[in-house]
Amino acid sequence: MIKIVTDIRGMQEQCDTLRKKGKTLVLIPTMGYLHDGHLSLIREGRKRGDFLVVSIFVNPTQFGPREDFKAYPRDLKRDVELIKPEKVDAVFYPDAQEIYGHGFQTSVRLSKLPKYLCGRSRPIHFTGVATIVAKLFNIVRPHVALFGQKDFQQLLVIRQMVKDLNFDIEIVGVPTVREPEGLAMSSRNAYLTAEQRPAAQSLFQSLEEAKKQVLSGETDAAKIIQSASERIRAYMEAVIDYIIVCDPETLEPMEHITKPALMALAVKIGNTRLIDNMMLLPESGADPNPGR
Amino acid sequence: MIKIVTDIRGMQEQCDTLRKKGKTLVLIPTMGYLHDGHLSLIREGRKRGDFLVVSIFVNPTQFGPREDFKAYPRDLKRDVELIKPEKVDAVFYPDAQEIYGHGFQTSVRLSKLPKYLCGRSRPIHFTGVATIVAKLFNIVRPHVALFGQKDFQQLLVIRQMVKDLNFDIEIVGVPTVREPEGLAMSSRNAYLTAEQRPAAQSLFQSLEEAKKQVLSGETDAAKIIQSASERIRAYMEAVIDYIIVCDPETLEPMEHITKPALMALAVKIGNTRLIDNMMLLPESGADPNPGR
Repeated sequence: MIKIVTDIRGMQEQCDTLRKKGKTLVLIPTMGYLHDGHLSLIREGRKRGDFLVVSIFVNPTQFGPREDFKAYPRDLKRDVELIKPEKVDAVFYPDAQEIYGHGFQTSVRLSKLPKYLCGRSRPIHFTGVATIVAKLFNIVRPHVALFGQKDFQQLLVIRQMVKDLNFDIEIVGVPTVREPEGLAMSSRNAYLTAEQRPAAQSLFQSLEEAKKQVLSGETDAAKIIQSASERIRAYMEAVIDYIIVCDPETLEPMEHITKPALMALAVKIGNTRLIDNMMLLPESGADPNPGR
Repeated sequence: MIKIVTDIRGMQEQCDTLRKKGKTLVLIPTMGYLHDGHLSLIREGRKRGDFLVVSIFVNPTQFGPREDFKAYPRDLKRDVELIKPEKVDAVFYPDAQEIYGHGFQTSVRLSKLPKYLCGRSRPIHFTGVATIVAKLFNIVRPHVALFGQKDFQQLLVIRQMVKDLNFDIEIVGVPTVREPEGLAMSSRNAYLTAEQRPAAQSLFQSLEEAKKQVLSGETDAAKIIQSASERIRAYMEAVIDYIIVCDPETLEPMEHITKPALMALAVKIGNTRLIDNMMLLPESGADPNPGR
C-alpha cells in the first residue's frame, strides 16, 4: 500500500526523519490525473533516490479566473492504482485549506521569465507555480525534484527560483512523453473529443515540420512560425495563443536561428488549451535537451 | 578565531554537514555595525543551539532609491572584535555579487503586512527583507532564527513568511535593548549628533507616556497619538513619518484600546530615520511581549 499523507506536519516530519538517516529524497510535484508522462518522471525519479514522494495538488493559485480550475480532472483512486506498480513511497495529497490556511499572504515572483510564452496570457500562473513549489520544497526538502520538459517555461521558472533563493535541490527536466501520433501527454487531453484529436495532433506535426525546416537550412524564425501557423489554422477548432521561436534559457524571441532555439506553442482546441515545444537545431551535434 | 565565510556554497555545505551530525543550527541575520541589541540576540541564540551563525550583509534590495544604503555604517573588523567574547561559530559575510548574481529575478512578497507602518513610506522594503531572509534560511537552514522586536513589523513579516512558505524554522523575537536614556539601540544611531540626541530620545519618552496613559484608563488611540505627536514635534529637527496604535498581529489600526495594542512610530531626526515601538496594555496581566 502506498502511504497517503494529507497533512503538512506529518509529511515534513517523515521526510526530516528519513533525511537524518541519510536517505536521499526525491519529489515529483503533480496536479494528479496521472498519465505516462508522470510515470516517466516517477521511473526517472526512482533511480535518483531512496524515498520517492509524488505530490498531488490541483493548485488554485496558478489558474486564472476564467481558466479550468473547477473542471480540471481529479481522481485519486485512479492515480493510486496507476502508480501502484511504480514503487512510490508516499503520496502527498493535501487540500487547499491545509496549503493556504488562514491569513495566507506570501508569494514567490519572478520578474523576467514569466513575461514570455504562457505568462502573457496567464499573468498570475507562474507566481502560483513558484509559490506552491517553494512550499512543497520546504515541506519535503527533497535532494532531487523532477519536472517534465513539456512545461518548458515552468521548468525554467523552477530552475531560476532554486538558483535565486538558494534551494539546495537538484532539478531534473524529463523529456516529453507522447502518444503514438505525437500528441504530448497531458491531463488536459482528457477534455478532447475524438473529432478534436486531429487538430490537437497538428501541434506536434507543426513542431516536427519546423525541426526539419531548420535542419534543411532555414534560419528565418518568421517563416517557420508562418508555416506552423498555417498548418494549425487549417483546423477550424484551433485558435492559436502563441507560436514562438526563442532562446531556450531566457525565452527571449529569436529572429534568426543560428544557434539551438526553442519553438514553443499554445493552442486552444475548443475549450482545451494545449502546449508543446521542441528544440530546433541548426547544426547537428548540439545538445537536443538543454532543459534536462 | 571566528570563522568568516564569504561564499554561499561553503556556508551551505558546512551547515549541511553539521545538521547531518545532529547539531542544532541557529541563525542571526544582521546588517552589521553591531551593537548591544545584536549581542542580546547572540546571547539568546547561544542558549538555543550548538552552532551559531551571524550573517552580516547590508542588503541593497531593502533600501529605497533615496535611502541610506551607501551611507549605512560598515565595519567588519569592529564587528568581529565585538562578538569575539560571544562564542559565535561562524560569520557569514557574502558580497552583493555572491547574493544577487547574474540574472537574479526572484522575490518573496507579502500582500498585507507591508501595507502598514514602515511599508507605507518604504514600499519595496519588506519584499527586500523577505527575499534576503528566505535566501539566508535556505543557505544556513537553521533550526532557530532570532530577530529583534525593535523591528516589530519585520518580525511579523518573517513569521508570516515562515508559516506561509512552510519553512521548518522556529522564529524567536528578542526584546529591544535600550541606551540608559531609553533610545532603542540601532546601527543608525551612529548618524546622530550630540545635539540631535534629545529629539531622538523623545521617541521612547512618548511611548512610555502612552503606556502610562493606557494604564491609567485612556482608551482613545487618537488622543494618545496626539500627545505623543506633540511631545516629538517639540523638537525642531524631528519630522514624524507615522505614529500608530495597531493590532499587534495584523498591524491594522485600532481606534479603541480595549485589548493589548502595539504603538509604533517612525521619526526622522535630521537625515536619520528612527523607529521604535511598545506594547500598550489596558489591563495588567496581559502578555507584554507578543512578538517573542
